[in-house]
Amino acid sequence: MTRFSPDFQQELSELMRWRRDVRRFRTDPVEEAVLEACLESFALSPSVGLSEPWRVIRVESDTARAAALANIKAANADDLAGNDGEKAALYSQLKLSGMQEAPVQLSVFCAEETAKGSGLGAQTMPEMRRYSVVSAITQFWLAARARGIGVGWVSILDPDQLCADLNVPEDWRLVGYLCVGWPEEDHETPELERAGWDSRAQGLIVESR
Amino acid sequence: MTRFSPDFQQELSELMRWRRDVRRFRTDPVEEAVLEACLESFALSPSVGLSEPWRVIRVESDTARAAALANIKAANADDLAGNDGEKAALYSQLKLSGMQEAPVQLSVFCAEETAKGSGLGAQTMPEMRRYSVVSAITQFWLAARARGIGVGWVSILDPDQLCADLNVPEDWRLVGYLCVGWPEEDHETPELERAGWDSRAQGLIVESR
Repeated sequence: MTRFSPDFQQELSELMRWRRDVRRFRTDPVEEAVLEACLESFALSPSVGLSEPWRVIRVESDTARAAALANIKAANADDLAGNDGEKAALYSQLKLSGMQEAPVQLSVFCAEETAKGSGLGAQTMPEMRRYSVVSAITQFWLAARARGIGVGWVSILDPDQLCADLNVPEDWRLVGYLCVGWPEEDHETPELERAGWDSRAQGLIVESR
Repeated sequence: MTRFSPDFQQELSELMRWRRDVRRFRTDPVEEAVLEACLESFALSPSVGLSEPWRVIRVESDTARAAALANIKAANADDLAGNDGEKAALYSQLKLSGMQEAPVQLSVFCAEETAKGSGLGAQTMPEMRRYSVVSAITQFWLAARARGIGVGWVSILDPDQLCADLNVPEDWRLVGYLCVGWPEEDHETPELERAGWDSRAQGLIVESR
């Protein structure tokens, strides 16, 4: 029994092909109703033991945005210092986040000690709670892209500093900082590939055991 | 500019609504071409710095399957001992994996020390490589569901033991063990909710800072 048509299956594949990590945003706002429709995909995401550990903070105030921006700038400088020669030159030219332009910015956390789900499936692999949050972000990303909206996942920052700056509960752990908005352009090819940082493999190799 | 229609956006939401963690599988095989179409979503997934750290092992031999099954049985027994009273009674009735029936079983790893991507985006958050693998699994899950195929993510096992049993390279870390096959039934409601283990929240709360 297949509920979804071959056309839909094909279009889903197209969506994955056009989903990009976006760092170049227009500054015009995203309609609240559209953003809400995208955010609904969190509640539809799989979570270990039904723990639903995702927690989302919308980073809006000048103070919170300035703290996040200072955070990535510091981490960026450290990263640049860790590269040398040609790679450093390339690194310094990459645009690594849209934090100065993206109209919507979401900081997504995992509530590590949530009682929900009673720990099911997270005893031997407690990271499963964080993985559930990643699944939710991935679904949000696809839902946004289906509406033409771009998402950029920023990870070049100090997670503990961000938790402190945003004053989140003790047991929350940062999973991702998302820039969200209308992309300047659509691309089928990742920006890092276009910039010559690295290229994608030609498919997946599956070994058997 | 929106490449995807409102109808597609709606159907994508339906797909997320019907995506389930499946533990009850029919034993008839999944066609190789269909499985391959689903696996293509790995190569279309986002990865930090273009590191593409996903590594997939198909668990097929009697020896490998027996080892995986022994692994989950031991972890299950430990988990059961960690619950008491009513929750223990409920736990013992849950079907936690389809490892005895699922025709296709995939063990998905992260290559923690891949040189690909040159560490970009993973300096302050090295877990980003594992998160990239989770994104790929999530996309695979949706691609499978769009074709009527069920996926069940097993996390009640000892990851180090599984790595040893499957004899994978030293730097590979288990992210998920996936059971894949045709589901016995389709459900809009998670099995854990139907079994009374926990229930889903009524949507997402987003705070501002």
